Amino acid sequence: MKRLMMMALALFVMATTFAQQALWGGSQIVSPEIHDDHTVTFRLRAPKAVKVEVAGDFLYDAPGKARLKEGEGGVWEYTTPEPLVSELYNYSFIVDGQRMNDPSNVAMVRDVASVTNLFIIPGDPGDLYSVNDVPHGTVARRWYDSPTLKEQRRITIYTPPGYENSKQTYPVFYLLHGSGGDEEAWIALGRTARIMDNLIAQGKAKPMIVVMPNGHTQNAAAPGESDRDYLPAMGGGARQAVASMEDSFGDILKFVESNYRVKKDKANRAVAGLSMGGMHAAAISARYPKTFDYVGVFSAPPIATLMRRDNADAPRATEEFVKKLQAQQKNGFNLYWIACGDTDFLYQSVIDSMKRMDEIGFNYTYHESGEGHIWKNWRIYLSEFAPMLFR
Amino acid sequence: MKRLMMMALALFVMATTFAQQALWGGSQIVSPEIHDDHTVTFRLRAPKAVKVEVAGDFLYDAPGKARLKEGEGGVWEYTTPEPLVSELYNYSFIVDGQRMNDPSNVAMVRDVASVTNLFIIPGDPGDLYSVNDVPHGTVARRWYDSPTLKEQRRITIYTPPGYENSKQTYPVFYLLHGSGGDEEAWIALGRTARIMDNLIAQGKAKPMIVVMPNGHTQNAAAPGESDRDYLPAMGGGARQAVASMEDSFGDILKFVESNYRVKKDKANRAVAGLSMGGMHAAAISARYPKTFDYVGVFSAPPIATLMRRDNADAPRATEEFVKKLQAQQKNGFNLYWIACGDTDFLYQSVIDSMKRMDEIGFNYTYHESGEGHIWKNWRIYLSEFAPMLFR
Repeated sequence: MKRLMMMALALFVMATTFAQQALWGGSQIVSPEIHDDHTVTFRLRAPKAVKVEVAGDFLYDAPGKARLKEGEGGVWEYTTPEPLVSELYNYSFIVDGQRMNDPSNVAMVRDVASVTNLFIIPGDPGDLYSVNDVPHGTVARRWYDSPTLKEQRRITIYTPPGYENSKQTYPVFYLLHGSGGDEEAWIALGRTARIMDNLIAQGKAKPMIVVMPNGHTQNAAAPGESDRDYLPAMGGGARQAVASMEDSFGDILKFVESNYRVKKDKANRAVAGLSMGGMHAAAISARYPKTFDYVGVFSAPPIATLMRRDNADAPRATEEFVKKLQAQQKNGFNLYWIACGDTDFLYQSVIDSMKRMDEIGFNYTYHESGEGHIWKNWRIYLSEFAPMLFR
Repeated sequence: MKRLMMMALALFVMATTFAQQALWGGSQIVSPEIHDDHTVTFRLRAPKAVKVEVAGDFLYDAPGKARLKEGEGGVWEYTTPEPLVSELYNYSFIVDGQRMNDPSNVAMVRDVASVTNLFIIPGDPGDLYSVNDVPHGTVARRWYDSPTLKEQRRITIYTPPGYENSKQTYPVFYLLHGSGGDEEAWIALGRTARIMDNLIAQGKAKPMIVVMPNGHTQNAAAPGESDRDYLPAMGGGARQAVASMEDSFGDILKFVESNYRVKKDKANRAVAGLSMGGMHAAAISARYPKTFDYVGVFSAPPIATLMRRDNADAPRATEEFVKKLQAQQKNGFNLYWIACGDTDFLYQSVIDSMKRMDEIGFNYTYHESGEGHIWKNWRIYLSEFAPMLFR
């Protein structure tokens, strides 16, 4: 069979040459190159360019951009002056003012309508976000029926390694995205499958099912995945959502509990989210009593109304929600975990929420990190929250 | 709950503004705009550019590129002079010689290491490649154990609508990619889930499971999805494949038949592939006797050895394979479908294969289309082949 393999190789060479001639540009240069000392070199072939820059979150402390220098054959290059600490980083090139992806790097991620390249510096936490030689769970994109929203909706579901071949039942973790996301956000930008695979393999997290729905009820699915035009959260679209995420959450719960082998009690259900999803997690856990023993609110005020102090209705709405929190406290739960970065634009409303929660003796746990409203923090929060679940 | 939604909107505006300032560029222009008459306008904001072009397969008969004209605010624009026929088209922009994606179009697809934008002109066959308001199957990325290759390998599996909630068993269609592909190729470029959802909803194809493995045995998964560096098919990498696709195919068969509710007989198994995958389909169906009643060889010579007439060993290897074909013919099958485009660079070897098959009275069916070794043809072949299965 070696023969056939040789022919396949020959065919590949022919086919790629053909394809390149037909449409795509080829690139043989290495970018980014991660050196042993964890400095990184970026390269772009752009013989006609006047100015080439790289923009990315690894340049956090710099002006956010660095200039590449032109070398032989029109290949531009930039090497970070210092080693980078272990992390997952995103970047783009800017060629004469025009933002573009790195054609040499196949690793990309979509954040709503923006696509950027990514790379990972090994170590802690980078290794947790990488594919390692450990058993891998399954990631399924499915559609569930939402009678409340009167439509089929797309959902991403992670089942842990071994799920399919066991008769075991599993706990379920509902993980909600922010305003600028969809049912692909946590799996792509949040590296949920990597993090769960690795935490489970290390014995740090229990095997669990992770359910990642679409929190924008005006859309049935991520852009391009639905038969309707995608409506940005800012509105202006023709279609109003029939109901809110909280009002329709019961449909998701019902779908999961009738389609998966799950443990159907409070001790085996968790809900968490980031930003808008954090507000959803707080609202859902208060609204569905005796349903969740674990709640995570990442980079968002649990009392959402405290975000807009200019709103005349806010005080009344706040007190209404505080009553729900009191009922939630009385019903009991295992963990109510609030996490926020100290430069987050929602930081003050998170602090205000906790002040109000203190007044009613609400039993939350607070974790404060550096930096702000960014995926770097949300991946870390997930990595810290998941190990505390279902203990 | 309207209140919470309003706040989510406000939060989204804040968050996106923040994100844009932090890293990503924003774009409010519409591109591509598909007009009612099916002409298409492309737009790119590039105030500093000297020359902006669009390259794409919709310019098939043209030089393959068209120039955009600069208008107000540095927004460049090009409208196709003629309406486009219904199809899925890929394109990129070229800004001063530098290829880049359209920042206004979230629809993208990866072809190995190249990412391009796509759009669909409605009609036939475009509607078949679109998400319609029909029941949707599930697409799962899983890992199976390959004792032959001594590793876990990634695989994409489509289960038809209703699979999860029935006790029914289903037929299985193994669908193999080409040299320049991986386990994501058929689902992304081939639009398999869309095509199957739509064909099943129209009653044109039977509900079936579609299994899309990775045909490069030197890799465990698509680029970025494995813990090893990705080795292009051209070789040069450190790792030789332990065994070929044909030799290790039994592991996939075993995995599918022990993990899914499937019909386990010849009448309910199909295998097809494009290019290298077509050669795999021919080799696998010959090698596993009485296993497949349906075989599809797209844009590839079923007798792979006829591709390289300069190879001294080819005549002997050809006769060896012809003996296997004779055994396959004797064992019987329902459909052996060969499809090729008349400008395909493998056209002559396909013709040569059929000549040799005629000589032994091998009972194939041939479908000739226009054009060549392109995804447009492979999507059409899939749409024509799937309805013939399991009848």
